[in-house]
Amino acid sequence: MPRPPLPPRLDAFLAKPNAAVIATVRPDGAPVTVATWYDWEDGRALVNMDASRRRNEHMRADPRVSLTVMSTPNWGSHVSLQGRVVEWIDDVDLRDIDRLAIRYFGQPYPFRDDPRVSAWIEIDLWHAWRPEDIKD
Amino acid sequence: MPRPPLPPRLDAFLAKPNAAVIATVRPDGAPVTVATWYDWEDGRALVNMDASRRRNEHMRADPRVSLTVMSTPNWGSHVSLQGRVVEWIDDVDLRDIDRLAIRYFGQPYPFRDDPRVSAWIEIDLWHAWRPEDIKD
Repeated sequence: MPRPPLPPRLDAFLAKPNAAVIATVRPDGAPVTVATWYDWEDGRALVNMDASRRRNEHMRADPRVSLTVMSTPNWGSHVSLQGRVVEWIDDVDLRDIDRLAIRYFGQPYPFRDDPRVSAWIEIDLWHAWRPEDIKD
Repeated sequence: MPRPPLPPRLDAFLAKPNAAVIATVRPDGAPVTVATWYDWEDGRALVNMDASRRRNEHMRADPRVSLTVMSTPNWGSHVSLQGRVVEWIDDVDLRDIDRLAIRYFGQPYPFRDDPRVSAWIEIDLWHAWRPEDIKD
């Protein structure tokens, strides 16, 4: 699998609000996947979650994650990123989840009561499947 | 997270040819994700891969996997399944990959030269996110 940086066309693809799934590992080593919003900036991925989610604990215990970002409607064409959380941010003013909600839905995040955290993911390896079908 | 069986409506959802991402773990414990075709039968998931893929080796070394199956077009609504590969089958006549290709594209798999293997996944835990948005 190649190392970053990604080719400009795939970098442009990742900058769009695509469907994505993130995997973390449980303390016992089993993988856990969940669909996720993400943003892409300077070759790093931003994700955001409810501070009470177990995924949050898993990522703090083992920062290694994998993110698969899918093309639409040809979701089989995808870019997968393996990396590590390198920065945690308490999203006290919900700025990051608003950023993601606006990116995906054009409006701020509607649920404002629960504390949230952001994680920035640095990419170690990437892989593209049928990248010729990915529109940039 | 609940244990199987899944409610009939989610079982019916999984039976449809949805977008999916599977996570396996590398020998060093890092998660690896990739978009995948799957089929769903009697509460188990079928996946199929090129016999030479590293994912295949990973799954044989550690059979624990996680599968996230997404709704369309509301991909944020999803069902995630945590389980283990309980059966490996050499797909010598390409019957299983044809089954998946026909399920997703209505025709047999076009690449017939490389050996392929199938894995049946038994589900230990499942989780649904916004299941009310999932159409069965």
